[in-house]
Amino acid sequence: MKKFMDEDFLLSTETARWLYHEAAEGMPIIDYHCHINPQEIAEDRKFENITQVWLGGDHYKWRQMRFGGKPEEVITGDTDPREKFRAFASVLPKLIGNPMYHWSHLELQRGFGITEPLSEKNADEIYDKCNEILAQYSARELMRKFHVKAICTTDDPCDDLHWHEVIREDETMEIQVRPAFRPDKAVNIEKAGYAEYIRKLSGVCGFEIKNVEDVVKALLVRIDYFAERGCLCADHGLDYCMYAVPDMEEAEEAFAAAMKGERPEKAQADAYKTLVTIACAKKYADLNWVMQIHFGCLRDNNKPQFAKMGPDTGYDAVNSQSGVENVAPLLNAFAENEGLPKMILYSLNPNDNTALVTIAACFQGDGIVGRVQHGSAWWFNDNRSGMRSQLTELANNGMLGCFVGMLTDSRSFLSYTRHEYFRRILCEMIGEWVESGQYPDDKEQLKKLVEDICFHNTNTFFGFEVL
Amino acid sequence: MKKFMDEDFLLSTETARWLYHEAAEGMPIIDYHCHINPQEIAEDRKFENITQVWLGGDHYKWRQMRFGGKPEEVITGDTDPREKFRAFASVLPKLIGNPMYHWSHLELQRGFGITEPLSEKNADEIYDKCNEILAQYSARELMRKFHVKAICTTDDPCDDLHWHEVIREDETMEIQVRPAFRPDKAVNIEKAGYAEYIRKLSGVCGFEIKNVEDVVKALLVRIDYFAERGCLCADHGLDYCMYAVPDMEEAEEAFAAAMKGERPEKAQADAYKTLVTIACAKKYADLNWVMQIHFGCLRDNNKPQFAKMGPDTGYDAVNSQSGVENVAPLLNAFAENEGLPKMILYSLNPNDNTALVTIAACFQGDGIVGRVQHGSAWWFNDNRSGMRSQLTELANNGMLGCFVGMLTDSRSFLSYTRHEYFRRILCEMIGEWVESGQYPDDKEQLKKLVEDICFHNTNTFFGFEVL
Amino acid sequence: MKKFMDEDFLLSTETARWLYHEAAEGMPIIDYHCHINPQEIAEDRKFENITQVWLGGDHYKWRQMRFGGKPEEVITGDTDPREKFRAFASVLPKLIGNPMYHWSHLELQRGFGITEPLSEKNADEIYDKCNEILAQYSARELMRKFHVKAICTTDDPCDDLHWHEVIREDETMEIQVRPAFRPDKAVNIEKAGYAEYIRKLSGVCGFEIKNVEDVVKALLVRIDYFAERGCLCADHGLDYCMYAVPDMEEAEEAFAAAMKGERPEKAQADAYKTLVTIACAKKYADLNWVMQIHFGCLRDNNKPQFAKMGPDTGYDAVNSQSGVENVAPLLNAFAENEGLPKMILYSLNPNDNTALVTIAACFQGDGIVGRVQHGSAWWFNDNRSGMRSQLTELANNGMLGCFVGMLTDSRSFLSYTRHEYFRRILCEMIGEWVESGQYPDDKEQLKKLVEDICFHNTNTFFGFEVL
Repeated sequence: MKKFMDEDFLLSTETARWLYHEAAEGMPIIDYHCHINPQEIAEDRKFENITQVWLGGDHYKWRQMRFGGKPEEVITGDTDPREKFRAFASVLPKLIGNPMYHWSHLELQRGFGITEPLSEKNADEIYDKCNEILAQYSARELMRKFHVKAICTTDDPCDDLHWHEVIREDETMEIQVRPAFRPDKAVNIEKAGYAEYIRKLSGVCGFEIKNVEDVVKALLVRIDYFAERGCLCADHGLDYCMYAVPDMEEAEEAFAAAMKGERPEKAQADAYKTLVTIACAKKYADLNWVMQIHFGCLRDNNKPQFAKMGPDTGYDAVNSQSGVENVAPLLNAFAENEGLPKMILYSLNPNDNTALVTIAACFQGDGIVGRVQHGSAWWFNDNRSGMRSQLTELANNGMLGCFVGMLTDSRSFLSYTRHEYFRRILCEMIGEWVESGQYPDDKEQLKKLVEDICFHNTNTFFGFEVL
Repeated sequence: MKKFMDEDFLLSTETARWLYHEAAEGMPIIDYHCHINPQEIAEDRKFENITQVWLGGDHYKWRQMRFGGKPEEVITGDTDPREKFRAFASVLPKLIGNPMYHWSHLELQRGFGITEPLSEKNADEIYDKCNEILAQYSARELMRKFHVKAICTTDDPCDDLHWHEVIREDETMEIQVRPAFRPDKAVNIEKAGYAEYIRKLSGVCGFEIKNVEDVVKALLVRIDYFAERGCLCADHGLDYCMYAVPDMEEAEEAFAAAMKGERPEKAQADAYKTLVTIACAKKYADLNWVMQIHFGCLRDNNKPQFAKMGPDTGYDAVNSQSGVENVAPLLNAFAENEGLPKMILYSLNPNDNTALVTIAACFQGDGIVGRVQHGSAWWFNDNRSGMRSQLTELANNGMLGCFVGMLTDSRSFLSYTRHEYFRRILCEMIGEWVESGQYPDDKEQLKKLVEDICFHNTNTFFGFEVL
Repeated sequence: MKKFMDEDFLLSTETARWLYHEAAEGMPIIDYHCHINPQEIAEDRKFENITQVWLGGDHYKWRQMRFGGKPEEVITGDTDPREKFRAFASVLPKLIGNPMYHWSHLELQRGFGITEPLSEKNADEIYDKCNEILAQYSARELMRKFHVKAICTTDDPCDDLHWHEVIREDETMEIQVRPAFRPDKAVNIEKAGYAEYIRKLSGVCGFEIKNVEDVVKALLVRIDYFAERGCLCADHGLDYCMYAVPDMEEAEEAFAAAMKGERPEKAQADAYKTLVTIACAKKYADLNWVMQIHFGCLRDNNKPQFAKMGPDTGYDAVNSQSGVENVAPLLNAFAENEGLPKMILYSLNPNDNTALVTIAACFQGDGIVGRVQHGSAWWFNDNRSGMRSQLTELANNGMLGCFVGMLTDSRSFLSYTRHEYFRRILCEMIGEWVESGQYPDDKEQLKKLVEDICFHNTNTFFGFEVL
C-alpha cells in the first residue's frame, strides 16, 4: 500500500516518479488564468486565519458543507472562524474521491507542512498550526513559495488596471502580474445590468455608446489600453457558445431593447454576441493575443438562494446545452473575417471533449504550433478523472505535446498546488504509456514533453518571455 | 489469475477485500425501489421452476436471447420451460462483459450453491438442481436469505394497497414491505389511456375530476392514503424531464384535450406535467417523503413488436433527449414554491451524470445531509462501468459519503444479489483510492463510510428506522 | 517495463497474450468497409515512396502536421517527398497517446520490419529503407502479406464497377474484392451538386428521373446492378441521422427545389431522405444485404481552407448534433415497412454509444444473430480508449460474442494493421475479465469468442463464404 499522499502521490510507476521529480516538479508556474485580486498582490496582503483563506470566498467548499448537512450559519454566516473550520473538517472525510480532499491536503502539506489527514478530531490543532504559519506569509511570499513566475488575473474592460500599474512599478516585485481582458458584461447582452454597464463603459471611454458599432469601438479602445499595460490574452465567459449570422440590424434590435432594460429576443441577442465576439477576435489576432472561451455553465440555479446570497455562492452547474455545436461556425466566422487568434477552448460539459478537440483540429495552421487548443479540464471537471479524460481526448485527436497545460482559475494564493496535482496526473499517464510499451522509454524526449506541457508551451504560446 | 467469481469477486486489493467482508457483506439490505408484486409476499409465493423466476417476466433476458438469434417461441412463447432454460444457457457464454453474466452466476451461487459456469453443456443438470432447491423456498424465505430488512414496492395511486395491509397485519412477517407512490398515469398526460385512468382515479377518490385542480386534489388525497399505510417515498417516471411555466390555463387546455382522447400539444402537456409535479413535490416535502425522479427512457421503439407484445417486453432504449436541461428549472420551481422534498434523481442517459450531480449540488441545504441525491446507476447503466462512472462523478462533484446507494429496480426475489454486486464495486473503488495513497488507511473511518453507503444513509434518509 | 511495441504490444496478461497469439493473430482479415480504389488492385499498383503511401491522401496525418505547426507547403504542397517525410517524422514524437503513433509504428514494423521509433533523427534512414522495401511490393502483395481474404470498397451507384469486373475476371486474384453501395449523393439532397448528380444517375439508368419515385426506382436498379456484381452491403453516410414522416408530397417539394439548384427546406429534405432511405432498406432486406449507417460528422468546418483544398483534407469534426434521437424512429419505419435489413450503426459522437447499443437491441429478432449491430469505434474514436468504450458498451448492453468487429475505413494498403490494433485491444479486455475472475478461464470457449469476433461473425453475417 502506498502511503497517504506522500512525495510519490498519484505516481504509481518508476517512469511516472522519475518524470515528476526530474522534469515536472522543478518547472516554474505560469498561471495564465486566475481570479486573484491584484490589489492583494499590490498591497502584499497578509491573512488572519486559515478560515479566511479557505472558506472566505470559496464557493466550492460552501457547496460541499451544504451537501454534508451543515447549516448555512457555519458556512457563510457570522459563526466564529474556528467553528467554521471545525465544520469543514467534519465533512472532509466524507469527501472521499473528491478533488477537494486532495487539494486541501496538498495545501496543508505544501503551505503548512502538515501531513496528517484533517478531520474533526484534529481540527483545532491544525487550525492553530495553520494560523501560526500563515502569520509568516504574505501574498507575494506564497507566490514565490510555489515558484510562480507569471500570472494573468481576470479584469473588466472598465478596470483602470491601477493595481496592475502599482505592481509593475514596484521594483521589489519580480513576478509578472498581467491583466486579462474579460468583456463578458459587454457581450452577454441578455443579462441583467447590461444597460448600466454600457453607460459605465461610455464613461470610461469618454464617448457615448449609442449603437453596436460604438460598443465594438469602445471594446477595441479598452483592448488597446490593456495591451499597453502588458495584457497578452482575453477570456470570454459564455453560458452557452452562441452563433448567429452577425447581422448588424438584428444586433441593433438587441442593443435597443437591452438599453431600455428589456430582455432582447434570443436570436437577436445571439446576433449581437456573435458580431461583437468576431470583432474582438479580429483585434486579438492583430495583437497576437490568446483568446480563451469558457462556455457551458448554468448559473444561479437556486433562485431563492440567489436572492439571498447573489452570484458565485455555490449554485452553478454544468449546462447540458453548452452550445458546442456553435463552436465550429463561430471559429469559421473568425477565419472568414481573417481574424482567427490563437485560442483556448473550454467547455464545462465533459461530453463536449471529443467534439471540441476535433473542432480545434480544424482550425490549426499558419505554422503556429497548437494554434487552437483544447483547454485543461475546468471547474467541475478539474479532478483526476476529468483531467484524465481531457488529456486522453487531446492525445487521441489533438497533439498532447503542444498542450499549454494547467491553470488554477482560483481566487486563492494556496491553489497553486493544483498545478502540482495536474503535473502528477500528467506524469502518471505518460508513465503508463511508457511502461506498457506504448511510447519509447527515451528519457530525453519524455523530459522535454513534460517540461513543454508544464511550462515552455505556455511561455511561448502567450509570449510571456519568462526566462 | 483470480478464480471465477469466488468470494473475492471484483475485489483486487487487500483493502477492498477487508472492506467488503468486514463492512459491506454483513449489512442488511433496504431495497427502496423495486417492482416486486406485494401479493407474492402476502401469499408467500412458491416458484415452480427456475425458468419461471428467470425468464417469466425478465425482459432484460428476453432481449439478450433475441440478440443471440433465438426464435421468439423459446423466449416468450409456449416452449417447454426446460427448453427455454437451455436456450438462455446457450447464449449466456456470448454475454462476456455483460452484467447479466454476473447477475445470473451470483444468483446461482447465492440462491442455489451452484458455482460452475452455466452453458448449454450443463444446462439440464443445473436446471434440475435449481428446481430441487427452489422447491424449498418461498418469497419471504428468499428475502430473509438475502438479509432484507425493508423494501418499497411501486404502486399506482389507485391501488388500495390491500396486499400491503395483509402483510402489515401478518405478525409472522418481520420485514418492512412499504408501498411507493408512483403517479405516472396521472402525470404523463400525453400517453394513451390517460382519460380512462382519470375516470378510474375519480372513482377511487369518490369525486369527479373535472379539471387540473381536481387532479391535484385527487393525488393529494391518495398521497395521504399511502402515507397512512406506511409509505415514505414517491417515484416519478418520465420519458424526459420536462419543465414549462406551470400555467394553469395551459394545463387546462392539455387536460381538456386529453380527456377527449386527443393528444395534447407538447407545450401544454409540459405545463400540466410541471404543475402537477410541483404540487406533488410540495406535498412530499410536507410529509418529509423522499421523491425519486427517473427520466430518460425511450420506450416501445419497435412498434410491430409492441403491437404483438405490449410494453416492458424488451424494446426500450436510452433517450438521448432526456431533458436533463429541465432538471434545474424544475427543482428551482419546487424551491420557489417552498416545496423541495428530499430527492433522488436518476437519468437513464449516462451522459447526464456530471450535469445531474452538479445540479443536485445546487439544491442542498436546510441542514439535511445529502438532500438531493444523484441516484445509483440505473437499468442500462446498472453494470460495472456504469456504476463506476456514477460513483466517480458523485465523488467528484457531490459527496460520496452521504450516498444512499443501491436498489434493485427488479421484479424478482433473486435480484438482491445486485446489492452485493454494487457493494463489491464500491469496496473495490474505495480500496483503489486507499491503496494508492489517495485516502488515509483509517480502517474505522473506512468501515463507517462503507456501512453508511450500504445501509445507514438509506435508513436515515427515508426514515425506515430499521434497527 | 514492457519493451516498446514488441510482439506483446497492448497485451498485459498471460490470457491476453495467449488469446492474441493463439486465436486472434492467425485469423484472416475481412475488411468489410474501406475506401481502397479498386483500380489500384486491378492494376496491382506499385508505390514510389513511403511519402506517397503515408502522406499522399491521408488527411489524418495532414491535420496532425498542421497541429504541430508545419507550413502547408510541406503538408499538401509541392515540397520534395523526403522533406515531407522529415516534417511528419518531426511531429510524430509529440503525438504521444495518439493512435497515429501506434498505427505508424505498426506499419513500419509489419510492412517494413523497422522496429525503432521514428523521429526527425532517423527520418532519412527510415525513409530510404521503406522505399527500398516498398519497391518489392504491389497492392495485392500487401493484401496477401496481411492475410486479407475479402474487402468491400465504397462505390457510387453510378459506378459501372469496371475495375471490380476486371478483378473478378482475373484468375490470378484469389482475394474477394467486392463493391459496397454508397448512395449518399442521391440521398443527401441538401448538398451542393445534387441536381447534377441526379442527371448523371438518369444517364446511367437510361431513363429520366423526374420525381422522387424515379429516384427510388433508379437506386433499386443500381442496387440490382451491384448485387449482380457481388455486392453484399450498402453504406449510408449522413451528417446527422434524420427522421421525418416519409411524406411523398414533402419529399417532392424538396426534390423540385434541389433540382432547381436551391437548398430545400430542412423538414422537406428530411422527409425526402427518410423516404428514400426506407425504400433502400427494404431492397437491402429483400437481398439479404447488410446496411451500414455512418452518421454524426460535421464536415468542412473551415471554409477558407475548404475553398482552397476541397473536401476530405482534414477539416472535419464530431457532430455534437448527430441525430441519434432519430435512429429508433428510422429503424422502426424500416420495421413497419417490413424492410428491416441486417444493419451496422456507427455514430461519430462517442456520447451516442450507450443510446445506440440500446436502440440496436430493440431491433433484434427473426432468429438472426446480432441482427442490428453497434459498429466498431469509427474515425475520431478509432483509438485505444474509443475502442474500449465501444466494446464496453456493446458488452454491457448488447452481446459482444456476436460482434462483427473491425474494419479499416482506410484508403491505404498498409492500414490492415488497424485490425491487429483492434484485436490486441479486444484480447486485452477479455484477458482482464478472465484474469480478474469475471469470466471463466475456459480456453476453448475464449478462443471461439475471439475467432468469432475477429473473423467468423463477419463472414457469416455478410455471407462472404470465405472458407
